[in-house]
Amino acid sequence: MDAIDVIRAKRDGGELTPEQIDWAVDAYTRGAIAEEQMSALAMAILLNGMNRAEVARWTEAMIASGERMEWSALDRPTTDKHSTGGVGDKITLPLAPLVAACGAAVPQLSGRGLGHTGGTLDKLESIPGWRASLSNDEMMDVLRSAGAVICAAGTGLAPADRKLYALRDVTGTVESIPLIASSIMSKKIAEGTGALVLDVKVGSGAFMKTVENARELAETMVGIGTDNGLRTVALLTAMDRPLGRAVGNAVEVAESVEVLAGGGPGDIVELTVRLAREMLDAAGLAGGKDPAEALRDGSAMDVWRTMISAQGGDPDAKLPVASESHEVVAPSSGVLTRLDAFGVGVAAWRLGAGRARKEDPVSFGAGVICHAKPGDTVTAGQPLLTLYADDADRFERGLESLEGAYEVVPDGVPDQLPLIIDRIS
Amino acid sequence: MDAIDVIRAKRDGGELTPEQIDWAVDAYTRGAIAEEQMSALAMAILLNGMNRAEVARWTEAMIASGERMEWSALDRPTTDKHSTGGVGDKITLPLAPLVAACGAAVPQLSGRGLGHTGGTLDKLESIPGWRASLSNDEMMDVLRSAGAVICAAGTGLAPADRKLYALRDVTGTVESIPLIASSIMSKKIAEGTGALVLDVKVGSGAFMKTVENARELAETMVGIGTDNGLRTVALLTAMDRPLGRAVGNAVEVAESVEVLAGGGPGDIVELTVRLAREMLDAAGLAGGKDPAEALRDGSAMDVWRTMISAQGGDPDAKLPVASESHEVVAPSSGVLTRLDAFGVGVAAWRLGAGRARKEDPVSFGAGVICHAKPGDTVTAGQPLLTLYADDADRFERGLESLEGAYEVVPDGVPDQLPLIIDRIS
Repeated sequence: MDAIDVIRAKRDGGELTPEQIDWAVDAYTRGAIAEEQMSALAMAILLNGMNRAEVARWTEAMIASGERMEWSALDRPTTDKHSTGGVGDKITLPLAPLVAACGAAVPQLSGRGLGHTGGTLDKLESIPGWRASLSNDEMMDVLRSAGAVICAAGTGLAPADRKLYALRDVTGTVESIPLIASSIMSKKIAEGTGALVLDVKVGSGAFMKTVENARELAETMVGIGTDNGLRTVALLTAMDRPLGRAVGNAVEVAESVEVLAGGGPGDIVELTVRLAREMLDAAGLAGGKDPAEALRDGSAMDVWRTMISAQGGDPDAKLPVASESHEVVAPSSGVLTRLDAFGVGVAAWRLGAGRARKEDPVSFGAGVICHAKPGDTVTAGQPLLTLYADDADRFERGLESLEGAYEVVPDGVPDQLPLIIDRIS
Repeated sequence: MDAIDVIRAKRDGGELTPEQIDWAVDAYTRGAIAEEQMSALAMAILLNGMNRAEVARWTEAMIASGERMEWSALDRPTTDKHSTGGVGDKITLPLAPLVAACGAAVPQLSGRGLGHTGGTLDKLESIPGWRASLSNDEMMDVLRSAGAVICAAGTGLAPADRKLYALRDVTGTVESIPLIASSIMSKKIAEGTGALVLDVKVGSGAFMKTVENARELAETMVGIGTDNGLRTVALLTAMDRPLGRAVGNAVEVAESVEVLAGGGPGDIVELTVRLAREMLDAAGLAGGKDPAEALRDGSAMDVWRTMISAQGGDPDAKLPVASESHEVVAPSSGVLTRLDAFGVGVAAWRLGAGRARKEDPVSFGAGVICHAKPGDTVTAGQPLLTLYADDADRFERGLESLEGAYEVVPDGVPDQLPLIIDRIS
C-alpha cells in the first residue's frame, strides 16, 4: 500500500477501502505516513467527505491504534455523556454523580479547554487537591466506591486520534464532520462505556453554528456508535446563550454544587435531568430511581462528595475567588432579548478562565456571572454581568468581546433556540 | 497573516487575495509555513481551483522567490519552447540549434526525466564530455558563441517551485492545472526568455490524457505568460504514440542528429519545423530564414556542433550503445494500427533509460527503437521493436509493459490523434 494511492483515491472522490483505512491510520501512527501526506488526506476528506462505512472503519482503526478499556468487572451497567462543548457547560459535573446515584456507573474521560469553550478538567482542578490523572486501576477504584469518575484520558487511548487532532489543528482541517465524529467516537468507544448520550451544541458559542450541521454531526456519531455495538443517543441543545449563570472554572463548580443541592439555574437543572434520564435509559435502567428525585433527596450530592474525595479533592474547601471584579450594568430598562454565548465565552477566556496555548495555565477564579438571562426584565443600571479576573488589566479586552453581545429592548421578546432542539437515536 | 486563515479561505472555496498569495509563497520558501500546512493548501487548491488572477499572482510570487535572468545584452531576441513531456520527445535537441540558425537566441533550461517520460539533460549527457551545469556567465558565453544553450536550471531560479514540487510529488497534489501551469511558467519567466512556445502533449504517454485537459492547461499557461508580458503560444500535439522512432537517451541524440543532417522521421521533422516557426514568429522574426531551409543547408547542424562543443561535448564522439538487445516481431501481417506511447515509455524506463528515484543513474544506451509506426504495413515476423539494455535481465519487465501496447490488423486503419491538434494563443 502507498500513501499517495490512498490520498489520490479520496482526492478523486472515491471511497476508501477498509484495507486502505486500516493501513493509513496505522502507518500514520507509526510514522510511515508523513505529516504532510496525512494533512493532504485530511483536506481531501474534508472536501470530499466519507460515507458511513468509511467513517465507521476510520473510527475502528483509530480505536485499534491504542488500548481499549473494559468495565465488565463492575456490578452495574456503564453509561457516559459527551458534549461537543459550549459556554457555561458544566453539565458533566452534576450529571456524572446524579446518574451514579440512580444506579449506573459513569466512567467519564474528559478534556481541557482550548479557545472560548471551557474544559471539565480545568473546572474540577479549581477544587483544592483534586487530581485529574488516574491510572486505570485508580479509575476502577473510584468507580467502585463512588459509581462515577471524571478524569483525564491516558495517552494509551486512541493515540492515532491524538496525533491527527494536533495535525488538523494547524492545517485548517478541523471542520470536517467525518473527522470530528470519528475523533470523538474513537475515544468514547475506547473508553469502554456501554451506552453513550451525545449533547451536540448548536449556536454562536458552539462548534456547530447551525441546526443542520449539528444534526449531520449527531447522525454521523450515532451511526458510528450503533455500528460499533454502543447504544448511542444524541440531543441537539441550545448554545446561542450561556448555559446557567456561571462561566469560568470555580464559579461553574459552585453552580454545579448548587444544582446537586437541589437548587441552581432552571436550564442547568432541566438539561442535567434530561441527559441523566437518557443515559439511564440507554444503560437499560429506565424505570429505576428518577434523577429529579436524586437531586432532591441529596443522594447525587453524596456521590459527588465521595467522588471528589476519592480523587484527592476536598468537597468542603473554599473555592478560589478572583481578586478583581467589574460590573456591567443594563444600559436601559426592558427585556434582555439576547446574551450571546460566543461573546460571553470569549470574555471569560480573555479574563483568564481559558488558555490561548495548550501549555498556558488557567485562572481558577476568573470568569463571568450572568445576573440576567434572555427573557428576564431588567432595569437601567442594574447589574447584568460581573466579570472576574486576577488582574484588572484584563477587563478592557474582556469588555471588548461583550460589545454587541447583549441587547435590552422595551417589551422585547427573546429570539433564542429551544433548550432541547431535537433528539436523534 | 496566518497559514490557517489562508488554507481556510481556499478550503471554503474563496479567492485568495494577492497579499495572501505573496505571503504564503514567501513564508513557505522561508519555512514559516510548515510542509503539512502547504500540503493541505495544495490539496485545497487542487480540489477548489484558482482563477486566472490567482494563478498569475501565484506564479509571480514563485518567480519573486528567486533570481530572474536577463538577456538584453544579446544582439538577438530570445525565444524558448517548453514541452509538458512525452515518449521519444527529443524535439528540443534539433529545435534549439535550428531556431538559433534562423536568427533568434534560445536560452533553454531543461530538466531530467522522472518516470516514463525522458529528460532532455539525460539525453544530452550521453554525449561524452557534455556538461549540463553552467554558471550564468557560461550560459551567456554559449548563447553568444552558438546562439543556443541547453542546460540545467540553477537552484536560484524559483526556489519556491522547487520546494513545492517536491512536496506535491509525495502528497498526491501534482495533478492540479493551476499548480502545474504556475510551476512551468514561473521557471520559464524567471529564465528571462522574451517569447515562449508551449508544446502541450495529449495522450496515453503524456501527463494530460485528454484534449480537454490539455487545452485547459495550455490556456492557463498562455494566460499566465500574457499577463506577465511574455509572448506565449501553445500547440496541443499528439502523444498517443511515441514521437519519432527512438525512445531512450543516446538513441534519441542519434535521431536528433539525423534530423539536423536533413533526414530523420517525418513526424519529428514536421513538429520541429512547426515549433521553430512558432518560436521565430513569437520572437518577431517571421519572414526571415525558414527553418526547413536551415535543416537542408546544414546551418542548424553547425549551431548544434558549436553548442555541444561549447558545453564540453564532442559532437563526433561515438555514442554509448547498450550491450544487450531483444527483438519484438510483428505477430501477424497487416497494418500497425496502434503503438501505445505509455507502454513504450514504460518499457524504455524499465530497460534503464529512465529513473525510478531522483538519485538513480540512467543507462545512456538503453531504450527502444520502433521499426514501424502506426499506419505502416508489416509482415508477420518482421522486426517491430528492438529493445536495448545493459543487462538482459531487464527485458522481461520491459516486455511486460509492451503487452497490449501494439496491434496489427489486416487492412486496419490507425486510430490516432493528428500530430498537431490545435494552436492556442
